[in-house]
Amino acid sequence: MTLSLEAARAQAARDFDASVARLCALLRIPSVGTDPAHRADTRRAAEWLARELAGLGLVVAVEETDGHPVVWARGGSGRPHLLYYGHYDVQPPDPLAEWRHPPFEPVTEEGPSGPRLVARGAVDNKGQLMTMIEALRAVRTSAGELPCSITFLIEGEEESGSPNLAPYLRRRREELAADVAVISDTTMLGPDRPAITQMLRGLLYVELELAGAAVDLHSGLYGGVAPNPIHALARMIASLHDDQGRIQIPGLYDTVRELDPQQRQAWREIGFDVEQFLGAVGITRAEGEEGFTVAERLWARPTLDVNGIWGGYTGAGQKTVIPARAFAKLSLRLVPDQDPETVLARLRQTLEARTPQGYRLEIRPLAAAAPIRIPAESPFFRAAERALSQVFPHPPARIGCGGTIPVVAMLKEELGIDTLLIGFGLDDDGPHSPNEKFDLICYRRGIESHIALLHELGRDTS
Amino acid sequence: MTLSLEAARAQAARDFDASVARLCALLRIPSVGTDPAHRADTRRAAEWLARELAGLGLVVAVEETDGHPVVWARGGSGRPHLLYYGHYDVQPPDPLAEWRHPPFEPVTEEGPSGPRLVARGAVDNKGQLMTMIEALRAVRTSAGELPCSITFLIEGEEESGSPNLAPYLRRRREELAADVAVISDTTMLGPDRPAITQMLRGLLYVELELAGAAVDLHSGLYGGVAPNPIHALARMIASLHDDQGRIQIPGLYDTVRELDPQQRQAWREIGFDVEQFLGAVGITRAEGEEGFTVAERLWARPTLDVNGIWGGYTGAGQKTVIPARAFAKLSLRLVPDQDPETVLARLRQTLEARTPQGYRLEIRPLAAAAPIRIPAESPFFRAAERALSQVFPHPPARIGCGGTIPVVAMLKEELGIDTLLIGFGLDDDGPHSPNEKFDLICYRRGIESHIALLHELGRDTS
Repeated sequence: MTLSLEAARAQAARDFDASVARLCALLRIPSVGTDPAHRADTRRAAEWLARELAGLGLVVAVEETDGHPVVWARGGSGRPHLLYYGHYDVQPPDPLAEWRHPPFEPVTEEGPSGPRLVARGAVDNKGQLMTMIEALRAVRTSAGELPCSITFLIEGEEESGSPNLAPYLRRRREELAADVAVISDTTMLGPDRPAITQMLRGLLYVELELAGAAVDLHSGLYGGVAPNPIHALARMIASLHDDQGRIQIPGLYDTVRELDPQQRQAWREIGFDVEQFLGAVGITRAEGEEGFTVAERLWARPTLDVNGIWGGYTGAGQKTVIPARAFAKLSLRLVPDQDPETVLARLRQTLEARTPQGYRLEIRPLAAAAPIRIPAESPFFRAAERALSQVFPHPPARIGCGGTIPVVAMLKEELGIDTLLIGFGLDDDGPHSPNEKFDLICYRRGIESHIALLHELGRDTS
Repeated sequence: MTLSLEAARAQAARDFDASVARLCALLRIPSVGTDPAHRADTRRAAEWLARELAGLGLVVAVEETDGHPVVWARGGSGRPHLLYYGHYDVQPPDPLAEWRHPPFEPVTEEGPSGPRLVARGAVDNKGQLMTMIEALRAVRTSAGELPCSITFLIEGEEESGSPNLAPYLRRRREELAADVAVISDTTMLGPDRPAITQMLRGLLYVELELAGAAVDLHSGLYGGVAPNPIHALARMIASLHDDQGRIQIPGLYDTVRELDPQQRQAWREIGFDVEQFLGAVGITRAEGEEGFTVAERLWARPTLDVNGIWGGYTGAGQKTVIPARAFAKLSLRLVPDQDPETVLARLRQTLEARTPQGYRLEIRPLAAAAPIRIPAESPFFRAAERALSQVFPHPPARIGCGGTIPVVAMLKEELGIDTLLIGFGLDDDGPHSPNEKFDLICYRRGIESHIALLHELGRDTS
């Protein structure tokens, strides 16, 4: 077949208001996957998507897992074979009081880049997922068929850490065989400045429990001789960074791949607005590792953050207690070529060595994901760059992302394929915050970009 | 009058079972003063005490305050004039699941020193308060009258920090005029080893709030450049002690009175069983200031403890957040001649100086109480020593107490009187813990000790 890019884009433009209406219908389903009260709603979102995909002529299955179902769909023929991944579950909307409108009643507001949809899931991931589906719709409507093979894999547990996805991928390896995966769950540098995310940091997340005495003690009767796990934990946490922002875990940097000078130069030139990025969230002074730019610290350097800490009395007023235990949640972001298991072993060794006499430490691993680096040399990556260049006034930047998308590592490990991370979010979308939004210009260009990608790939290999 | 010590003690012995029954009746009233759900119960305890004291022929008033009422009572005549202080409110019984029996249904269990009452408030303070009341009862019953003037002052807000007591003392200064106060709310060295507490540590309690960015941030998208208030707070806490256990607040030790060698020698000889004391609560290694014994660290040295810490995600599983804020509750125990206001100023200066760039610190003072040293040279102190020597197989030790009883400083400041701290608790009573208990041998000897004290004081000055 020959896909007419212009015809498909014109069709998408004619149909855009209806595309927005369909996205709103999906946003009205409160598919909060982590909340048992929304179990039925979450399934309803899966079924809604299955109907949409069936309506596009795809073969569709809603497949059960130990958690929320996976929506699988297959269509088209020939090579290449694309695997579109997305998720239909959304973050809990809390704190509810901070929303200007009810989170599951999408509202259009005017922003600096024009109208935007405000609702939970607007950008993460319903809006971005729908850019793919609406692109397919436009292509089918204008050309009558798809230019290559495509499979959809849409899960409902991304916000829960995808606990049932790897077993599903193993079970359905044959039905999921593809040449490359495509995910729209990342950001651009601005509405006019597209980006392809080439690096994702990995993650190691642990919970620490440090115990002193057998019971909580009165700070008057025991203060001065009782071990205080809050003090000891504070010292251990303080010991994990030096004054130059380097992580103090022996051997941690041994396998960190140095950034090549070309990459550093490219990142300096992409126009990442550091002041805007930090100022938007009230950071008055960037922390971190000396000798690296903000983009390098975020995208290409390992970091360590304590994500939570608790122990002793935390209510109103005073209670003179020396607690028996103190706790922390601690995570590291990992970069190529750090292996989460090796880092866990080093972290364990370090913290155990720094546990003072008289205390007992327990380390409970909660999550691990390998860092990702997508080869820019692949024909798919090049095709994506060409596609975005046709839709936006600027060519796409190759950026990194400090976050972790564990499914990318899973797809590589279980199915042996790389992923194209082509995202249409903006830094101020607030994907996990109240008043999450998605600019309509991003939605529109997202749809057009996926049309252009199908056009490039269909042409490439036909 | 002439009080026959033997007759009064014999009367107390005959009446002891009834004394236990009366204490049980008081223990059955769940007077949890801090819990609004128990407001009526708390008042019921005050009214129960008022009836008991009226039954002993005292003039009684239940006096309103802005919180729970004060029970005031007056009886006897002549000098000296004793002011008995106690409190009828009790700690919340939480965690309820850890009680062997319901906390407000007193049960007699067998312990190593014979039977003991288990109930919330058994030792703190209902049991100890009742030693005074039952002593008066035995004296009145056997002698027909009291050997000197006595006033009762029983509050219902001790476990809340006595917020309305100082105004009450100022308002009723004349009705409360006395020569010396008597409080039974401290411990002995063992069931056979009585003690008079001669030193009480003071208290300074603050809450810290350290803010970084304006909002909680995603640790993937911002980790490496975002300020992390948990890290900064950990560093600040870690900086407050050196490796020798000394508090690192400049000038803190300037006004700390050195222990005189005689005192240190006496404390070494009183038979304080450190291994038992630490082992009972599972402390495998004493922390604290090098160069001081455990008793000295507990009774006569300032200490600093973080009593609570919280920030970020503290629920189950993982959330990759960098919190905007982290909090801590921090307190110091003070010793003569440290002034809480001066210490607060030094603490504030120290913490502010150690707040890193890019963070904002707020310090909220929650409580302050001066340290106490009771002059052992007073005739009252000597009389108390003689009284205890007549009841116990060993003479009383002069001990310190690491805790704080703010009312002692209030009585000194508002009424100008010292306090005799004659306590009958044991280290393992668990006054703020589940299964709080009071050994009946301690209850009995407490009653006898207060009889003997009245005998000594009545004789002394008649």
